[in-house]
Amino acid sequence: MPQQRSLSTRTMDVLAAFTADNPHLSLSDISRRAGLSLTTTHRIVADLAGWGALERGPDGRYDVGLRLFETAALAQRGPALREIALPYLEDLYEATHENVQLAVREGLEVVYIERIAGRDAVPVLTRVGGRFALHATGVGLVLLAFAPREIQERVLSEPLTTWTTQTISDPATLRATLADVRRSDHAVSRGQVTLDALSLACPVRGSDDEVVAAVSVVVQIDTDPRGLLPALRAASRSISRALGSPRARRSDARPPDA
Amino acid sequence: MPQQRSLSTRTMDVLAAFTADNPHLSLSDISRRAGLSLTTTHRIVADLAGWGALERGPDGRYDVGLRLFETAALAQRGPALREIALPYLEDLYEATHENVQLAVREGLEVVYIERIAGRDAVPVLTRVGGRFALHATGVGLVLLAFAPREIQERVLSEPLTTWTTQTISDPATLRATLADVRRSDHAVSRGQVTLDALSLACPVRGSDDEVVAAVSVVVQIDTDPRGLLPALRAASRSISRALGSPRARRSDARPPDA
Repeated sequence: MPQQRSLSTRTMDVLAAFTADNPHLSLSDISRRAGLSLTTTHRIVADLAGWGALERGPDGRYDVGLRLFETAALAQRGPALREIALPYLEDLYEATHENVQLAVREGLEVVYIERIAGRDAVPVLTRVGGRFALHATGVGLVLLAFAPREIQERVLSEPLTTWTTQTISDPATLRATLADVRRSDHAVSRGQVTLDALSLACPVRGSDDEVVAAVSVVVQIDTDPRGLLPALRAASRSISRALGSPRARRSDARPPDA
Repeated sequence: MPQQRSLSTRTMDVLAAFTADNPHLSLSDISRRAGLSLTTTHRIVADLAGWGALERGPDGRYDVGLRLFETAALAQRGPALREIALPYLEDLYEATHENVQLAVREGLEVVYIERIAGRDAVPVLTRVGGRFALHATGVGLVLLAFAPREIQERVLSEPLTTWTTQTISDPATLRATLADVRRSDHAVSRGQVTLDALSLACPVRGSDDEVVAAVSVVVQIDTDPRGLLPALRAASRSISRALGSPRARRSDARPPDA
């Protein structure tokens, strides 16, 4: 298997050895996790450290380096989208003082590209740059509801991981929930990831009115989501307009359930 | 020159071809900017796209991909530090509604790792993941004032780029300014980057009390910085405490000018 990988791919696999659970790695950790010999690992790590993609700490272990962060800041579906959305996310945070999240779909998962939260917000499992399943969170349900049909069918055909007793685990329920999200143009996820949190999410549309992201507010489970929906709709509409969505520009555009 | 670079380094140089001014590149753009043959570029780009570090757009040009953002989110001096600092930066933003920035030093430059701003904040030239000179901004002056002596001497020995008539261009003035920053434990930069902006910055200290970052508020030039300093000091102190700074934990710790 390692023999089939090109050196460019092996270089990236050295970077992929670093994860949120294991962000500080020794050479032998990297070698083992990337499935590469110590010699090859040593050579690639030296190159990556020289370039700045890895940084060596005082204990001799390596971290992901600042230069990789600088390059990754150019990702259009990540930081570039976040920069456009930021003022509206800030407004939403000030109006709620809760977790405000912006996420996109990558394959069969959600990737969080922003999370704004104060000290008193309800704890969440998400992390900027982290992934999560599509079927459990508010942003995931929005992104799945508006994903291509084949993505939906793949999620519906696989076992649905559960985090709590409230997580949707039945494909028929998920299918009905997705139809409801499309109809109402928003999603509510109640206690599906942690029992004490409720997530309310709306779609963000791009220049072809395709759903390119989702924005959510995560609050205590006993919060009435109806009180949050207008502010969330306004934020997602404003971000969509900033992205050039024709639908968000139309003054007569109303959510179907308004 | 290209022959001397290892394939790992050439792989990273393909990524480095992408910049804030040129984030969408064709294969021939990448080839030219990375100084690699089209054949080599094609092979590396295909590997990077397969891994997810690059994404191909509908026009055939490439962008930095979301997967690079996911890996870069693990950078300890970037997103990991930002995550710890975020609640305090949010407090500062709410108290001021101005640009709130968090930055670290990388060599002879500042790298911005967070910028929070509303719609009405004064325009700034900075961007998350972007670099700037050390001698002109508030965060830069703080990071330079507390940098190792050899870093200071290198900056002082090179020509000082000016952005406005107010930018420090004289080494003797810069040396005096740095001494003042160390004495007062904060920096004020007035119109040095754009004539209409004032930046006020304080150091963030780590577990050995070394200065690991700087936090700033950038406001209109006619703002009295004395009104902002207590909130900024509180934020930088809180972040330092969260990072384990012994000095920030001491209840009797007072800034020298208090």
